[in-house]
Amino acid sequence: MNPSITGKPLQLKQLRIRDSFWSSYIHRVRDVVVPYQWEALNDRIAGAEPSHAIKNLKITAGLEQGEFHGMVFQDSDVAKWLEAVGYLLENESDPELERVADELIEIIAAAQMDDGYLNTYFTIKEPNQRWTNLAECHELYCAGHWIEAGVAYYQGTGKRKLLDVCCKLADCIDQTFGPEPGKMIGYDGHQEVELALVKLYRATSNEKYLKLSQFFIDVRGQEPNFYQEQFKQRNGSVHFPFLDIASNLSYSQAHLPVRLQETAEGHAVRAVYMYTAMADIALETGDEELLTACRRLWSNIVEKRMYITGSIGSMAHGESFTLDYDLPNDSAYAETCASIGLILFAQRMLQIEPRSEYADVLERALYNTVISGMSQDGKRFFYVNPLEVWPDACEHNHTFSHVKPQRQEWFGCACCPPNIARLLASLNRYVFTVQGRTLYTHLYVGGDLNAELDGRQLMWKTESDLPWKGEVRFEYIGQSADEFTMALRIPDWCEGASVKINGETVSIEGSIVDGYARLTREWQQGDRIELSLPMTVKRMKAHPSVRAAAGKTALQRGPIVYCAEEADNGADLHLLSLSGGKEFEARFEPELLGGVVTITTTGMRKKQADWDGRLYHVDKPAEEIPAALKFIPYYAWANRGRGEMAVWIKE
Amino acid sequence: MNPSITGKPLQLKQLRIRDSFWSSYIHRVRDVVVPYQWEALNDRIAGAEPSHAIKNLKITAGLEQGEFHGMVFQDSDVAKWLEAVGYLLENESDPELERVADELIEIIAAAQMDDGYLNTYFTIKEPNQRWTNLAECHELYCAGHWIEAGVAYYQGTGKRKLLDVCCKLADCIDQTFGPEPGKMIGYDGHQEVELALVKLYRATSNEKYLKLSQFFIDVRGQEPNFYQEQFKQRNGSVHFPFLDIASNLSYSQAHLPVRLQETAEGHAVRAVYMYTAMADIALETGDEELLTACRRLWSNIVEKRMYITGSIGSMAHGESFTLDYDLPNDSAYAETCASIGLILFAQRMLQIEPRSEYADVLERALYNTVISGMSQDGKRFFYVNPLEVWPDACEHNHTFSHVKPQRQEWFGCACCPPNIARLLASLNRYVFTVQGRTLYTHLYVGGDLNAELDGRQLMWKTESDLPWKGEVRFEYIGQSADEFTMALRIPDWCEGASVKINGETVSIEGSIVDGYARLTREWQQGDRIELSLPMTVKRMKAHPSVRAAAGKTALQRGPIVYCAEEADNGADLHLLSLSGGKEFEARFEPELLGGVVTITTTGMRKKQADWDGRLYHVDKPAEEIPAALKFIPYYAWANRGRGEMAVWIKE
Repeated sequence: MNPSITGKPLQLKQLRIRDSFWSSYIHRVRDVVVPYQWEALNDRIAGAEPSHAIKNLKITAGLEQGEFHGMVFQDSDVAKWLEAVGYLLENESDPELERVADELIEIIAAAQMDDGYLNTYFTIKEPNQRWTNLAECHELYCAGHWIEAGVAYYQGTGKRKLLDVCCKLADCIDQTFGPEPGKMIGYDGHQEVELALVKLYRATSNEKYLKLSQFFIDVRGQEPNFYQEQFKQRNGSVHFPFLDIASNLSYSQAHLPVRLQETAEGHAVRAVYMYTAMADIALETGDEELLTACRRLWSNIVEKRMYITGSIGSMAHGESFTLDYDLPNDSAYAETCASIGLILFAQRMLQIEPRSEYADVLERALYNTVISGMSQDGKRFFYVNPLEVWPDACEHNHTFSHVKPQRQEWFGCACCPPNIARLLASLNRYVFTVQGRTLYTHLYVGGDLNAELDGRQLMWKTESDLPWKGEVRFEYIGQSADEFTMALRIPDWCEGASVKINGETVSIEGSIVDGYARLTREWQQGDRIELSLPMTVKRMKAHPSVRAAAGKTALQRGPIVYCAEEADNGADLHLLSLSGGKEFEARFEPELLGGVVTITTTGMRKKQADWDGRLYHVDKPAEEIPAALKFIPYYAWANRGRGEMAVWIKE
Repeated sequence: MNPSITGKPLQLKQLRIRDSFWSSYIHRVRDVVVPYQWEALNDRIAGAEPSHAIKNLKITAGLEQGEFHGMVFQDSDVAKWLEAVGYLLENESDPELERVADELIEIIAAAQMDDGYLNTYFTIKEPNQRWTNLAECHELYCAGHWIEAGVAYYQGTGKRKLLDVCCKLADCIDQTFGPEPGKMIGYDGHQEVELALVKLYRATSNEKYLKLSQFFIDVRGQEPNFYQEQFKQRNGSVHFPFLDIASNLSYSQAHLPVRLQETAEGHAVRAVYMYTAMADIALETGDEELLTACRRLWSNIVEKRMYITGSIGSMAHGESFTLDYDLPNDSAYAETCASIGLILFAQRMLQIEPRSEYADVLERALYNTVISGMSQDGKRFFYVNPLEVWPDACEHNHTFSHVKPQRQEWFGCACCPPNIARLLASLNRYVFTVQGRTLYTHLYVGGDLNAELDGRQLMWKTESDLPWKGEVRFEYIGQSADEFTMALRIPDWCEGASVKINGETVSIEGSIVDGYARLTREWQQGDRIELSLPMTVKRMKAHPSVRAAAGKTALQRGPIVYCAEEADNGADLHLLSLSGGKEFEARFEPELLGGVVTITTTGMRKKQADWDGRLYHVDKPAEEIPAALKFIPYYAWANRGRGEMAVWIKE
């Protein structure tokens, strides 16, 4: 597919990031996370749960002997790693990494069956049971990740080997599934192949992949239910007995045809991956009904089912959405992968219609939950991202046993770490889109944009002081003058944004459309835009229907949501309260947590007076004393040992 | 064993209850609950889960054909029912009920094996696996309930048949377990037989039963661990895989020898049944070390691990205690049976040392959690007793799926309904104890005490206006004058208690010892004591370490803890707050919920202003408007349809 500036907005990825904040993350992915995960996939991390994922591939390829180990979807960890490698190689050459990846791709190719089928679990363990338990066994999910890897690696290196494997795999799937007589009318328990097939269509221009994705989207939730039919055909055998997937259809968003779904239900990652694919298809086909469903589901999430940190999925059971305004802080699931999926969904919606609300949520999830998922050293990860932690309760009350007070080295189900890696490695895809004569900036990330579309030079150098200061500078570096519109997002956290062009203040009032300040002129090489986004500490409140935040406040400054940690405030954070009207001091501390702006203020701390061993007491007056309170960015919590943490503080 | 007034306090059960509050409960047990449960045990309740318990006995007795169905401990439901029948027959003859019970006892006797073994699960289903999985399979637990039933039925009717069955069963157990060579050194996963054996010892004066109980208590938690040894012998087979009982030793209080246990751990019912037996043994043997352990565990519960409603067990997983001050209101387990067990423990401690703190807790659990467990019509029951309910969340968030917003007809695991029945049917055993020349009144329950001990007439008529008014009248109805001390408990909820004797005020200041006002005189027939216990509405606070109650208040009046229900206050109870300094009106409403005192006041309700679809908002001022708030007794909640409920309200 040839890029062109048409009526449709287009993602621009020709950005080389050089950012005061994000470059260190991307370097960490390249220098630490990707190498570390390679060791993990090869079972070479002492003390971490072995992955066995590479070994499964080698066994399938006939290169080693042994049994399959790991989750039924273990392959996807390798695929996500390889996808991240593709993005890294696109941004910067690394011959050694490319050599390792090429060798891996040879193994993958050897593990593929002659008919294109590629799945280590079924090939090793249940070769006669292919496609018999789509609800639980994730064959299409894994296929989707292989395809995303194949496309990314092709785009990053120009090498077709893995892409060809993926086309052969997609062809195998196309021969197996579809509305035509003799094919299965089914779909995977974990959506992923749908969005991957759209990528494959875009990479190959082969419309059959788009059609196959449409088929999977539209057949989901039709009656009779496919999962239940397969369940009967298997005589009721199940892979994950506790999930009850054949009767709990909303877990996999199979309770209704997707176009009829009103609320975000079930497993949060599956849901947002599906909405992402729906948006992809709506973009490609102009399907208004599908777009309406996307907008409705988006609104349900961001207006009723999303934490202030941009995380989603309120309960551990089924890693799922629950109900409107049910956002418990301490028993939250808030999976890292789910926020990544929400970012994918937001990115696709921005490609359809540039409205800042999508980018606001994207930014919220990115700066808070996604990077919270990784430790400062890039070697430990959160799967679950609670907004309140009492470590003793996590250890002694099973309600909180999924909440880990500290990041873990690796997981038996290691979906999140490679997902963080592939998102950060491809961050340049989330910053700009272009539509017609307008270049949209969704995120303020420093770097050089160097795109030419239809002879037009979309070339800008960006310097950003985010997230600690709201100053952003753009310089047009195209050689030829060109008239077009720079559309700069005015974030939801900002009041009083101002713009200077070549040093002169330009009024942006009246120029803001859908949350973007539109600056139209004939840009000359060297033209400079200075965007100023004032950042103050905001006392954030949740909608009154959010029970878990009733009477409480969270602090936010710029895109960063803050939290109180025991390391700064002592234990028993529930005894603290913010005092009304008090000033906040925001101060950059270069030595703390890699350099962060902290917020301090004077609040109150309830005294734990002597209760004479009584648990309940008549009208005991609550004595309070002033206390210095300190808040750090939420994403940086749990880097200073085990302790309490809270985002929402009593007012 | 002949009752006698010695140095030890003695439970007095010669009380015929005629009480304005409790008589209706006891009648309901007799007229509704016991007949209803008989139908349930015989699988004749349409729409309720079948019990199969009687059928299991008939199959075991060879009277019917079929398979075992139900929980491994299904027998205990029958035993608890029969125990309740024993108490009812002791208080009032009922030839038809006695005939039904006698017929059942014939079946039970026929179901007993020649060697005394009695357990339908193992006899029908795994006859060769007796005693191979004590940790999970509850053979001794069921035996304990048979024994309690046998003793109660013997005491209630004078009939020995079931008692003889129980002695034969206990002898079988004694031949199987013990320190002697060739016997098993083991103990049950669910404590119960220990306290039952003390009852059997008291009923038969056969010391071997006391010794066997001591053995079970002292062998628990010794190394090598018995459960783990049996687990190995079974090659790792388990009955309840999710409990992981062979490694989670504290679940069954088998993590340490009982004398070394410092905190209340594990399954709450098991724990308090065990502490009850420990207290029984301490009472019988004067074992000071065991008594010290009882006092320590009691303090840990009531000072750190008990809800204000007298319920215990903070989490559903394992129906267990968690950690100090962890008392979540919405995800509480707070099992009805656990509060009954806490009452048993308190009763035993009162027999050892009359201290009002035991009776305060006993009263709290009784008036709140225990009777909350049963609907107004006696046909529906709570197993779990939360302190806060959002019904939508119970249905959509698995964290709360154990919490039922409405009472259920019956349960597959139906431990609680018959437990409520047997407790209420034996309520006369919880009111008085006697020690030396002192008659202690622990609960204020109307009725006629008619005891003669060592020629002394402990004969009093009591009229009580509790729980709605704190007025209690005693009249000495003994024919012979006698000098002794009436020790009247001054409840923890009361300030300014006063006493009149024969119409004249008597100062009780200075006469209060361990929470009991001591009135010593030579009592003459017709002497009257009027005890006045002022009841005001109390704003109760929880210890600051209780996170779930931080910044909140619960209302209590007399022994009754109150709650707000949606039926009176509308939905979204989290938006309500109590205003400081406002007056409360307490008013008896005879038509409401069987006649209750309600509390009304003016508080505030936060307005759910228009948030324009936003979930988070900068410093949105919280608008509040005055609201009429109404509170009902906690025990009466969920009798007016599905709705929200909250005990703790923001201040």
